[in-house]
Amino acid sequence: MGKFKNKIFAEFTGTALLVCVVVGSGIMGQNLSDGNDGIALLANSLATFWGLYFLITIFAPLSAHFNPVVSLVSYIRGELKFPAFISFVAVQCLGGLLGAILANLMFNLPLIELSTKIRTGSNLWFSELIATAGLIMIIFASDAKKVPIMVASYIGAAYWFTASTSFANPAVTFGRIFSDTFAGINLNDAPLFIIFQIMGGLLGYLIYKVVWDK
Amino acid sequence: MGKFKNKIFAEFTGTALLVCVVVGSGIMGQNLSDGNDGIALLANSLATFWGLYFLITIFAPLSAHFNPVVSLVSYIRGELKFPAFISFVAVQCLGGLLGAILANLMFNLPLIELSTKIRTGSNLWFSELIATAGLIMIIFASDAKKVPIMVASYIGAAYWFTASTSFANPAVTFGRIFSDTFAGINLNDAPLFIIFQIMGGLLGYLIYKVVWDK
Amino acid sequence: MGKFKNKIFAEFTGTALLVCVVVGSGIMGQNLSDGNDGIALLANSLATFWGLYFLITIFAPLSAHFNPVVSLVSYIRGELKFPAFISFVAVQCLGGLLGAILANLMFNLPLIELSTKIRTGSNLWFSELIATAGLIMIIFASDAKKVPIMVASYIGAAYWFTASTSFANPAVTFGRIFSDTFAGINLNDAPLFIIFQIMGGLLGYLIYKVVWDK
Amino acid sequence: MGKFKNKIFAEFTGTALLVCVVVGSGIMGQNLSDGNDGIALLANSLATFWGLYFLITIFAPLSAHFNPVVSLVSYIRGELKFPAFISFVAVQCLGGLLGAILANLMFNLPLIELSTKIRTGSNLWFSELIATAGLIMIIFASDAKKVPIMVASYIGAAYWFTASTSFANPAVTFGRIFSDTFAGINLNDAPLFIIFQIMGGLLGYLIYKVVWDK
Repeated sequence: MGKFKNKIFAEFTGTALLVCVVVGSGIMGQNLSDGNDGIALLANSLATFWGLYFLITIFAPLSAHFNPVVSLVSYIRGELKFPAFISFVAVQCLGGLLGAILANLMFNLPLIELSTKIRTGSNLWFSELIATAGLIMIIFASDAKKVPIMVASYIGAAYWFTASTSFANPAVTFGRIFSDTFAGINLNDAPLFIIFQIMGGLLGYLIYKVVWDK
Repeated sequence: MGKFKNKIFAEFTGTALLVCVVVGSGIMGQNLSDGNDGIALLANSLATFWGLYFLITIFAPLSAHFNPVVSLVSYIRGELKFPAFISFVAVQCLGGLLGAILANLMFNLPLIELSTKIRTGSNLWFSELIATAGLIMIIFASDAKKVPIMVASYIGAAYWFTASTSFANPAVTFGRIFSDTFAGINLNDAPLFIIFQIMGGLLGYLIYKVVWDK
Repeated sequence: MGKFKNKIFAEFTGTALLVCVVVGSGIMGQNLSDGNDGIALLANSLATFWGLYFLITIFAPLSAHFNPVVSLVSYIRGELKFPAFISFVAVQCLGGLLGAILANLMFNLPLIELSTKIRTGSNLWFSELIATAGLIMIIFASDAKKVPIMVASYIGAAYWFTASTSFANPAVTFGRIFSDTFAGINLNDAPLFIIFQIMGGLLGYLIYKVVWDK
Repeated sequence: MGKFKNKIFAEFTGTALLVCVVVGSGIMGQNLSDGNDGIALLANSLATFWGLYFLITIFAPLSAHFNPVVSLVSYIRGELKFPAFISFVAVQCLGGLLGAILANLMFNLPLIELSTKIRTGSNLWFSELIATAGLIMIIFASDAKKVPIMVASYIGAAYWFTASTSFANPAVTFGRIFSDTFAGINLNDAPLFIIFQIMGGLLGYLIYKVVWDK
């Protein structure tokens, strides 16, 4: 395949598998833990830690943003042209949707089902702002070869230290609309999550520029 | 010992220990967790993560497939001749059986006992297809020295994000028939698991060839 | 920014994020675990393990003490001048306070709330002495590039093997006064924790000098 | 200090801290988990994983057996003279005792208290045989710089896949006699554990010689 096609494939497949890991492990965690959400989130955060590590490692030679905010910052940095940026975001969101469908399919749920999980409130928006700012700092300030373990560790921790369990990713947020399970988010609550993620990402990049980038 | 004998020893012993880890930690997890299967699967997935990491690392200088689907793909790639391929699969399956016996012996259960655990349904077969496709992609697209941590992380996550807890291995599936415990699988349900694992493996290798291999 | 400003920024921000991880994951763990503090501490220790790993890694090129006892030992070693030492301790404590405020804000709690959690008794003081001695030994006897994973592993274990859950850090102890949640500490109990941390740190450094440093 | 004194110090202190981690995290795990031993063993195995990793890493430049069976194999290999071997075993056992005392002290228990925990039966002896054989194989067949993570992963898994939770160490077994808590072992049951550990160690070394060592 051509180089650009491979990047598009990687962003689509990687984001799909990421959402499949997040949503699928949430379903399994909830199914098995007898209503104890602490156990479910332990499972969800461990699976996401492992998942981010292997997905970023395996797709990094092609492309491994899996996140429109990361692609946006790459566009701002001039590493991504505008049409490529738009293509990345489009396939990331489609990938997110496919990931939710895959998880629903594996767990015998309706292929697409709108989440009824309410996630609203200024404390959750603030959490997404902080979570995404931290994620962008981590990605751009880390050595390239340490990015997989750094992002995995960051998100593993952020599942627990932010009140929103750290979505920090508009494409993953979009995918999580379509599964009415542990990791889901109500359609109406998604836009504000995404707005605060974008603001957080820009804030994180600003801090990175001032502090690390010389 | 001769080189081939060492490879055969490694495939036999490594698969036996892998099944012993999977089945044994399932028994211990279930014994201790008061019926909360979330806690049992946390134990099972952590132990399998650690187990895959040390087993692949220690046996890699000899041979570390531990999985007939991996050997099949190696045969297709011409890295393994047909008689070696057949020998590998045979000792992997025997190793799987021995691993279940070892686990049963350690936990004072009948040495061999057919599992009564029903694992059937199109969603589980689909899970095995996806799980094995991902495993084969991970193995062939990773740097050789990262294979242990990549496979361990992948399976650790896949225990949670697939509905079947990701057997992804015909020899391990075979071994798990012979312990009527947490990680077991009913004899009648094993063949379809194995068929979908083989199809998933071939699918995963096809994707690897198109995307990563140049 | 100038080099010293960057160090001060790193010590302030890093300590704030560390306390935010510790306090925030404690709140989330407790909220979700139905009164089972074992599950809450599993979450708290895993999140702190991941958090220490990424925070020390990302800030190490600037400055990554995040702990007045570490700065004190650096001052004793002549790596830090007196005014810098005082500045470090001041911003670490302010950072600790900010971290508690951030966590409270994310979880919709009063911005500042004095903890009512009693943590007193000679066994806890002894725990802090041992915990901080071990931490200082680990930091100074490790290869620089292994410090993040060594400190993270040490504290992850020490949450469980010390009776005090191993605060081992006066700035973090200070921050934890201001959140009346799982990871909090009563104002009256903090001074003795800090005194034993300082004594433990000096003891740990002494052992390091005699045994490792040549 | 002289070189031999440093080795003795390392074996004594390292074994003491190892037992302190094992016993202490067992107490904390049991205290917090409301009678759910699955949660307690998750805590115990994670803390021991982290503990082995940092202890072996930090003491490896001096000496890091922490285990009479490892010292015995080193003696057989001629890496350790007889008087040094005897000294190592003596300080490892004393260290094990001190570790139990430290843990008891931190958790406000009687300094020395004989465990009442019955651990007997052929399945447990068989578990110790397998566990120690595997440990010795892992230690001698691994690259020196990977030993810390390999041993930690192995024991982390073996806590779950062996019925005895894998003591695999006579000095640690000795130490665990003196705390009547989660990780304890009845005085009368310790000798057979130790005998099967020694036999397992010799078996593991034999397998290593035949298969890996050329």
